[in-house]
Amino acid sequence: MKSLSLKEVRARVDESLETLFATKQRDAMQLDQRYARLWNAIATLVMQGGKRFRPYMVVLMASLYGDDTLNIDTILPAATAQELLHQAMLIHDDIIDRDTVRYGIANVKGQYDAHYAEYISDENERDHMSKSSALLAGDALISEAYLLLSTLDTPPHVRSAVTATFARGIFEVIGGELLDTEITFLPAGTLEVEKIARNKTASYSFVSPLTVGAQLGGAPEEDIILITQLATSLGIAYQYRDDLLGVFGDSDETGKSTSTDLTEGKRTLLIEQFDRVASDDDKTVFYQNFHSATTHPESIEHMRSLLGSSGAKKAVETQIDRLRQHTLDNIAQLHLPEEARQELVTLVGICLDRRA
Amino acid sequence: MKSLSLKEVRARVDESLETLFATKQRDAMQLDQRYARLWNAIATLVMQGGKRFRPYMVVLMASLYGDDTLNIDTILPAATAQELLHQAMLIHDDIIDRDTVRYGIANVKGQYDAHYAEYISDENERDHMSKSSALLAGDALISEAYLLLSTLDTPPHVRSAVTATFARGIFEVIGGELLDTEITFLPAGTLEVEKIARNKTASYSFVSPLTVGAQLGGAPEEDIILITQLATSLGIAYQYRDDLLGVFGDSDETGKSTSTDLTEGKRTLLIEQFDRVASDDDKTVFYQNFHSATTHPESIEHMRSLLGSSGAKKAVETQIDRLRQHTLDNIAQLHLPEEARQELVTLVGICLDRRA
Repeated sequence: MKSLSLKEVRARVDESLETLFATKQRDAMQLDQRYARLWNAIATLVMQGGKRFRPYMVVLMASLYGDDTLNIDTILPAATAQELLHQAMLIHDDIIDRDTVRYGIANVKGQYDAHYAEYISDENERDHMSKSSALLAGDALISEAYLLLSTLDTPPHVRSAVTATFARGIFEVIGGELLDTEITFLPAGTLEVEKIARNKTASYSFVSPLTVGAQLGGAPEEDIILITQLATSLGIAYQYRDDLLGVFGDSDETGKSTSTDLTEGKRTLLIEQFDRVASDDDKTVFYQNFHSATTHPESIEHMRSLLGSSGAKKAVETQIDRLRQHTLDNIAQLHLPEEARQELVTLVGICLDRRA
Repeated sequence: MKSLSLKEVRARVDESLETLFATKQRDAMQLDQRYARLWNAIATLVMQGGKRFRPYMVVLMASLYGDDTLNIDTILPAATAQELLHQAMLIHDDIIDRDTVRYGIANVKGQYDAHYAEYISDENERDHMSKSSALLAGDALISEAYLLLSTLDTPPHVRSAVTATFARGIFEVIGGELLDTEITFLPAGTLEVEKIARNKTASYSFVSPLTVGAQLGGAPEEDIILITQLATSLGIAYQYRDDLLGVFGDSDETGKSTSTDLTEGKRTLLIEQFDRVASDDDKTVFYQNFHSATTHPESIEHMRSLLGSSGAKKAVETQIDRLRQHTLDNIAQLHLPEEARQELVTLVGICLDRRA
């Protein structure tokens, strides 16, 4: 099958999302206008942002493995389902993280905060009610994602395999999300950061889309296993790159503050490595300011330099290189033409050498 | 196909739930013991209670329409999926309603309140964290319900139809849940109580299981339409009976207080009818005590007698009779042997003449 660019995939997925939301808003309106408002809030959020990178990975893999009998229309429901699931998880994650902004606008909870302000004066009560609406919004998107998968016009065994992969991703991201929530107050377990990266990021954002795409393309079973492995490494490395960009990135390029992770005391691999390699003196200085909202910009710059001079930054880069090599080794074993394998090597570069 | 009693269905569904939870707990343990705890909390709750009436309705319909080639093993995934969805909705509904007890034990949120007590002293913070865990638990069950449906060993078009019915039930119950939440503070719309009963109760608890069962049994399209209609009427009438039992029932039989609906100010059809038929004097007396936690037992008894003497109770009974007749008229038109139709008439009696 002919491959599509990220831009082309985005256009097709956005079209499919627009159609879906229009249908849901119409159906919801038949039930009650207040229900149509919920779907409107969802549509406003989802159409505002998101790179559609997960759908792109589905289409990419399907195009690498699929022959000319496969086309974008066949795989679009699975690609769109990945995006719906992602948006559902973001909506629920935002409830858990008490965030009300996403893609620079009010998220579902935030939109309902504004709507309910007229009717509920008590702030705690309003907070609870708008969380409840966002909870329902996320449920609705999980359901629609599965419904889309059930419409896949593929042989039954392919649809079953795709659905099982999709469900496995959800099973794991829920586990990852739980650990990520509990890490803030429960005694830390072993390999905590790696475990969260594996289950919260790699699983549903890399393993699920890449594997689903390969399954739709008819990849052989050996390749499905290799893809699961390489997608796991790639996803974990992607998260580690994210952690580095969160501290050392250029905020003009990333669009995110490079001090928040430090002032909010985010426990990333970088911090875990710092704990392992830094001197006691450096740690004393570092932890005077880590996880403190009042830290002065100069102190943040000093923390940043300690993360560099201690060798922590280098240690994370080493981990990323190790995971990249594992990913590339697995790609080399795939039953694909050299040209197709090169497309995956390019994907690895996009994920791990990004500056934003 | 041979029909099964509620008791037989319950045994099979419970067995299938036990197997599913054991698998999930094992898989979750491979991820992390803290994730296994979440599945343990879910299993503890789900195996504690629930009549499994929704699975029973699936099996009943499948047995009425299905021939001898159909058997319980084929339809069990769909029956179990209905129960998983129901439990997911209860877990999320309890978050919205701020309940921590279900089936006489701590629900998922309640179990996590106890678990987190050791680690989080601040009550609001703990409340948020245990709500977050319950939120994830509900998500997990929605996903597992769909995964089960995808394993249905039926012709693809049957599986698609069943999944679409299931998804429609979720779409509607989310709308019903939203309206039920917002009714407490938004200006009431028209036919509010009927709309909530239709979407929060009838849709996923009656229309979805009865229709899914009929689809699995191979019912003709005309019957699917009739079943959607009769299940809607039956579900709404079921809710109205519930409202009456909530005020006039025998708490020894129902296991629920018969004053809570009045002291908590629940806006049921009974209250809506009272507003319509009662004299101004009766309303004045009634609303002095409605929605007040401190109401004296004698005043509650007086409110109860006003609901009777005003004609409100009778008006609800009239509505139930009207809906019952609509249900029976539809049953009479089904393409089923007289004996099979009688089984559905019996079901109507169980739902509407119950004392608990």
